[in-house]
Amino acid sequence: MSGLVALDWGTSSLRAFRFDGTGRLEETRARPWGIRQLPEGGYEAALAGITEGWPALPRLACGMVGSRNGWREMPYLDLPANAAQLGGALGIVRAADGMDVHLVPGLRDPRGPDVMRGEETQLVGALALHPELAAASTFILPGTHSKWAVVRDDAATGFRTLMTGELFAVLRQHSILGATGAEAADDAEAFARGVAAARDSGAAGAPSRLFSTRALMLDGALAPASVPDYLSGLLVGEEFRAALADGLARRGTPMQLIGEAALCERYRRAAALFDIELPPPIPDAAAHGLWQLAAQADLIHSRKLHAC
Amino acid sequence: MSGLVALDWGTSSLRAFRFDGTGRLEETRARPWGIRQLPEGGYEAALAGITEGWPALPRLACGMVGSRNGWREMPYLDLPANAAQLGGALGIVRAADGMDVHLVPGLRDPRGPDVMRGEETQLVGALALHPELAAASTFILPGTHSKWAVVRDDAATGFRTLMTGELFAVLRQHSILGATGAEAADDAEAFARGVAAARDSGAAGAPSRLFSTRALMLDGALAPASVPDYLSGLLVGEEFRAALADGLARRGTPMQLIGEAALCERYRRAAALFDIELPPPIPDAAAHGLWQLAAQADLIHSRKLHAC
Repeated sequence: MSGLVALDWGTSSLRAFRFDGTGRLEETRARPWGIRQLPEGGYEAALAGITEGWPALPRLACGMVGSRNGWREMPYLDLPANAAQLGGALGIVRAADGMDVHLVPGLRDPRGPDVMRGEETQLVGALALHPELAAASTFILPGTHSKWAVVRDDAATGFRTLMTGELFAVLRQHSILGATGAEAADDAEAFARGVAAARDSGAAGAPSRLFSTRALMLDGALAPASVPDYLSGLLVGEEFRAALADGLARRGTPMQLIGEAALCERYRRAAALFDIELPPPIPDAAAHGLWQLAAQADLIHSRKLHAC
Repeated sequence: MSGLVALDWGTSSLRAFRFDGTGRLEETRARPWGIRQLPEGGYEAALAGITEGWPALPRLACGMVGSRNGWREMPYLDLPANAAQLGGALGIVRAADGMDVHLVPGLRDPRGPDVMRGEETQLVGALALHPELAAASTFILPGTHSKWAVVRDDAATGFRTLMTGELFAVLRQHSILGATGAEAADDAEAFARGVAAARDSGAAGAPSRLFSTRALMLDGALAPASVPDYLSGLLVGEEFRAALADGLARRGTPMQLIGEAALCERYRRAAALFDIELPPPIPDAAAHGLWQLAAQADLIHSRKLHAC
């Protein structure tokens, strides 16, 4: 029997994908067992639980499971790095069932410095699905810590983390900008206004316009219920402004979203206000990337499995 | 008897200054009775408490006491605005003792939009103490919400709020950047590194470098205990970068700090890394400004007082 159990193991969630020996995805499972909220029994119990009933197959995991606070710390691979290099740098942790779990290393951009864990696997998956983007492209991976990654000649050559999602959350929950006294309403127009304010903020940047959110509300020019969408627009717009200012994204070079549909849709609307048309996002890039890396590392038909 | 009771009444503190009829400051008192933490009995009780034993004198207050959540909301005066215009736009609230409290309006920069309350009075005081700055200067008022204000021909012509202090607090207390597991140490070198990173961040800006704080720590290149000072340097440096990018500050035009000594000292160190030499800060600018505005409004020898 051949195949792969691929694990996308982050801070707050764990997803498992079972592939057959030809790379066909046979089953997907998700549990809330991120590395900060493991079930009783820790990593071993989470792994046994999410793969219950599945055959003994090689196992490969990416994400925060390989971080300092994870199951085993995997060193970062410095840029530039491609799929072959990542596949050649897998680590191993031995599980209680006597079988190995292979771990994908993260990537490090020494120029930031900046680091990623998990997104490197999504990049590999996205490039396997869209080889036309391998020559030159920028990938946008929105989230708590959004990543903008530059690909040249099939390798990641630079990336940067923008703390958009986390900034939005802490500003809403803990700053004066969140003290609106109103339930948040869905307001696409306020989001667009925020994006435009970021776009038009010049070299000073949108963070120097954060307080205008409050001033607009005091002016009566922004409904308290629309403050969150305006703030979200300001922060998402700032990603595009900063990425264009920094050369992480270039007009004329393809840009591609990777991620969850609803969040990516906000980025597509923001991009449109920068006169950038983004295609629909690539979903399930992590699963595809794990398969690719397992193939690179020759795990799928590995004799190591039978030796266990 | 002539003189003035001047009140600097903010969100978290209340300060009272008693002037004689010649403008000599005779006594200063401070209480933790900002508008969000008033004593039992509210504004009336706070006023009676802090002026206890003082003679019946005209009273003038600036700051958040005139905000929507204050004692009485005072409309903002749009820029450009000078001391005479501010003095001519005072409002009044009648206290329980039958005497008036005059209130200074805030300022509004319609281009942000942006707003200030209290800092306009500090600007008036600073310009009275330093008339040589009235022709052309930029004032920097560091704080939870730092203000950078441009003065031309004795009037405030533009300003912007940078949420530096609040951003620092929410990032330290509620974001991954605060999760260092270490007690903060005083590290002037880490502060300087943060300032330099902001200065060198180009048009992308320091907010796009926030995550590098974490990456440097993971690298072992920044001690966990020094993360707060690095982050502080990044955010204070960003004020200078953005202000220079925006034309709020110009090399060759005097820049002057107003505020508390220790905080202003950090700004002087940051400025030095931008090759800007800042003179020592102006203290007690609010008290001086209140006296100036009271004089402008002819409150000090006012007959209104005797009519009460």
